[in-house]
Amino acid sequence: MHIAIIGCGQLSRMMALAGIPMGIDFSFVAAGNEDTRCVDGLGKIITWQANQSIDALYQNLGKPTVVTAERELVDIDLLQGLQQHCSVHPNPAAFSACQHRYREKQLLDDLGIACTPYIYGQTAASSAEVLSLPLVVKACSGGYDGKNQWVLNSEQAVLDYDSTATNTDRLCEQWIPFDKEVSQVSVRHNNGEVLHYPLTENQHSNGILRQSIAPATNVSPAIVELARQSISKIMHSLDYVGVLAMECFVVGEQLLVNELAPRVHNSGHWTQTGSVSQFANHIRAIAGMPLGSTDTNNMVGMVNLIGIQKPAFDVLTENTTLHWYNKTVRAGRKLGHINVVANSLDDLTTQMQILQKQMMALEVDG
Amino acid sequence: MHIAIIGCGQLSRMMALAGIPMGIDFSFVAAGNEDTRCVDGLGKIITWQANQSIDALYQNLGKPTVVTAERELVDIDLLQGLQQHCSVHPNPAAFSACQHRYREKQLLDDLGIACTPYIYGQTAASSAEVLSLPLVVKACSGGYDGKNQWVLNSEQAVLDYDSTATNTDRLCEQWIPFDKEVSQVSVRHNNGEVLHYPLTENQHSNGILRQSIAPATNVSPAIVELARQSISKIMHSLDYVGVLAMECFVVGEQLLVNELAPRVHNSGHWTQTGSVSQFANHIRAIAGMPLGSTDTNNMVGMVNLIGIQKPAFDVLTENTTLHWYNKTVRAGRKLGHINVVANSLDDLTTQMQILQKQMMALEVDG
Repeated sequence: MHIAIIGCGQLSRMMALAGIPMGIDFSFVAAGNEDTRCVDGLGKIITWQANQSIDALYQNLGKPTVVTAERELVDIDLLQGLQQHCSVHPNPAAFSACQHRYREKQLLDDLGIACTPYIYGQTAASSAEVLSLPLVVKACSGGYDGKNQWVLNSEQAVLDYDSTATNTDRLCEQWIPFDKEVSQVSVRHNNGEVLHYPLTENQHSNGILRQSIAPATNVSPAIVELARQSISKIMHSLDYVGVLAMECFVVGEQLLVNELAPRVHNSGHWTQTGSVSQFANHIRAIAGMPLGSTDTNNMVGMVNLIGIQKPAFDVLTENTTLHWYNKTVRAGRKLGHINVVANSLDDLTTQMQILQKQMMALEVDG
Repeated sequence: MHIAIIGCGQLSRMMALAGIPMGIDFSFVAAGNEDTRCVDGLGKIITWQANQSIDALYQNLGKPTVVTAERELVDIDLLQGLQQHCSVHPNPAAFSACQHRYREKQLLDDLGIACTPYIYGQTAASSAEVLSLPLVVKACSGGYDGKNQWVLNSEQAVLDYDSTATNTDRLCEQWIPFDKEVSQVSVRHNNGEVLHYPLTENQHSNGILRQSIAPATNVSPAIVELARQSISKIMHSLDYVGVLAMECFVVGEQLLVNELAPRVHNSGHWTQTGSVSQFANHIRAIAGMPLGSTDTNNMVGMVNLIGIQKPAFDVLTENTTLHWYNKTVRAGRKLGHINVVANSLDDLTTQMQILQKQMMALEVDG
C-alpha cells in the first residue's frame, strides 16, 4: 500500500506518521514554492505545477495506490487526472464542493442543513438591504485562517468596501453573535459506515484556531445529534471517503454550519490522545481498512503553538504531549500543538490557561 | 535534540516513530550485517563494528545529544566511548548488569528481590544435586526468545547435557511450575521519578512472546505492589533513566523475577493504545522531558505477528490497530503486532482468539 498526499504541511506530516506504523509507504506532491520541512524524510517528494504532466507525476511518485490531500484548494484537474491511474479519496467532487464557498452553501441548502444567511455575488450595499449589519464578506475561494474575509460594521464600511472591491465571486454573510464555535470531525468508509468523534469546542482569535476542547461543554444532546446527522448527510451525498470536518456556530439551540473542510482538521488534533486519531482513521478509510474507534474517555484539549520558539521540554506535564512540525519559526505561523488530557473540565481549563501563558512568553516578533 | 539508537529493529523503529512527532531527530547504529528495513527513512544509519573508531561514529551520526539502544547486548566499550561525547541512557552499568544472567541474579540478590533458585558455573549434574528436576540451563549471555536455553527433564538428559556442553558461563535454574508469566514495564526520569504501566500478563510459546494482556488478570494487589517496589528498587540502584522491563513468574502469592530488559519491551507494545506509550515515555525520559501518564482505562491486548504474510487490512476491527515493521517475512520472525482494546476481559479474550486463528492461517513455511 502506497499513499500519495498532495501537500507538504503538518497535516500531511501527521497523516504519514499515522500510516507508517501500519507499514504503509508515503509520497508527497509539493507545489513549486512549497516548504517541505514538515515531511522531509517521510517519503519521496515530487514537485508538480499545473502545466506539467499528471501521468509523469503519477509515475514519479512511484504509482501510489491511493491519493489524498491535506488542503481543500487542490487543482481538480489534477485529482481527475490521477483518478485515471488510482483511487482518489475524498473524490474530486467533494473537493470541488468544499473549495468554493457558494458551492458549499448550495450543497448545504440542497440537503436542508442550516447555515448562516448569505447572499452571493452582490455588492455589500445591496446585501446589507437584506441582511442586517454587521456583514462578513468572504471571497468564495482562497480563504483560510481568516484570510480574504472582511467584517463590515457600519454603512460607511459597506460603502468603502464596495468602492474598492473588485472580486465579485464572494458571499456576504450575516455576522452571527454565536454562543460557541464547535466542529464535528467524522470519518466515512467506502462501505458507507460513518464514525463521529465527540463534538469539539473551538476558540479562534484573528481567524486562527487557538485552542480546542472535547467533548464540547454545555451543548445539548440535540445539538450533538444534529451535528452528527448533518455531517452524515453531507458525507453520504458526496459519497465521501475519509475524514471530513464541519465547523459550526451554536446560537441558542440552533446549529449553523459555517465551513466544511474535506480533510483532517486542526480542531481534531486532540484525537491523537486516544487510540485511533483522525489521522489514523483517515488513512484507514482511504486504504479500505475497517475504521477505528472514535470513542474517548477523558476531557481533552489542544493548544496551538503559533509563532513561537520551540518550547523547552519542561513545559510538558504527565498529561500533555508535544507535536512539533519542524517548520521554520515565523510570527503567526502554526508550528506545533500540545494535547492535554484531564479528568475534569476544571482541571483541563487550568492546565490550558497555564500553557497559553507559557506559550505567549515564547512568541517571536512579527 | 538528536537521539541515536543502537540497533535497527522494530524497537528502534517504534522509538523513532514516537519521537519524530515531538520534533526530535533520529539516527541509528547498525551492526555490520544488520537488516535496516525497520528504520529505513527514519534517520541516518551508520554501520559500526567493534574495531572501528567510536569518535568517528559519533561524528558520522551527526553528534547526537543522547544515545540509547534497542537491545541489551550492546558493546559496553561502545557505550562508554560514546559517554565521552554525550549522554547515554540507560547507563552502561545498567546494560552490563542486564546482559549477563549471573550479574543480573547478583543484582537481584543484593537488592533482596526474589528470583528463581539458581546455581552458577557448575555442571548440570552437580546443580541437580541441589535443585530438583526439571532444570533449565541458560547461557549467561546471548540468550533471547528462548535461544541458548535447555530444559533438562531427566537424569539422563542431565548427563547428556554435561557430556556435550562446553560453555561454563551458564546458570542452572530450577524449572518453575508458574501460575502466570507477567511483566512490569516502568519508566524512570533522571530526577528519580518512576511511573509504572499496569502489570502485563504474557503468553509465550517456544520461548517467543505470543500475546499479552493488561492489566494482568487474577493477580492480587500485593503482587502488583511488589512488582512496582521491586522494579523501583532496581532502577534507583542502577540510577536508571528510561524504560525497564522486568519479566516475572507468579507462583501462588510469590513473584519471582526471571529476566530484566534494559529497554522498551515486546510485552509493553500494548501501551501504544493509550496516550503515552512506552516508546514515547522512553524518549521523554532520556530527552529529559517530564514523563507522560502511564494510566490506562481499558483492558488491552497485543497479538504478535510471527512468521506470517502481512495480514489483509480487513482483519482489523474498530478496536484494533496494526503495527507492521516492514521486515522481510521469514518463519518464526516477529514481523508486527496488533493491539486490541476492549471493555471487558471476555470481550478481549474473544477478539484475541479470533485474531490468533486468522494469523495462524497466514503462517509461512519454516
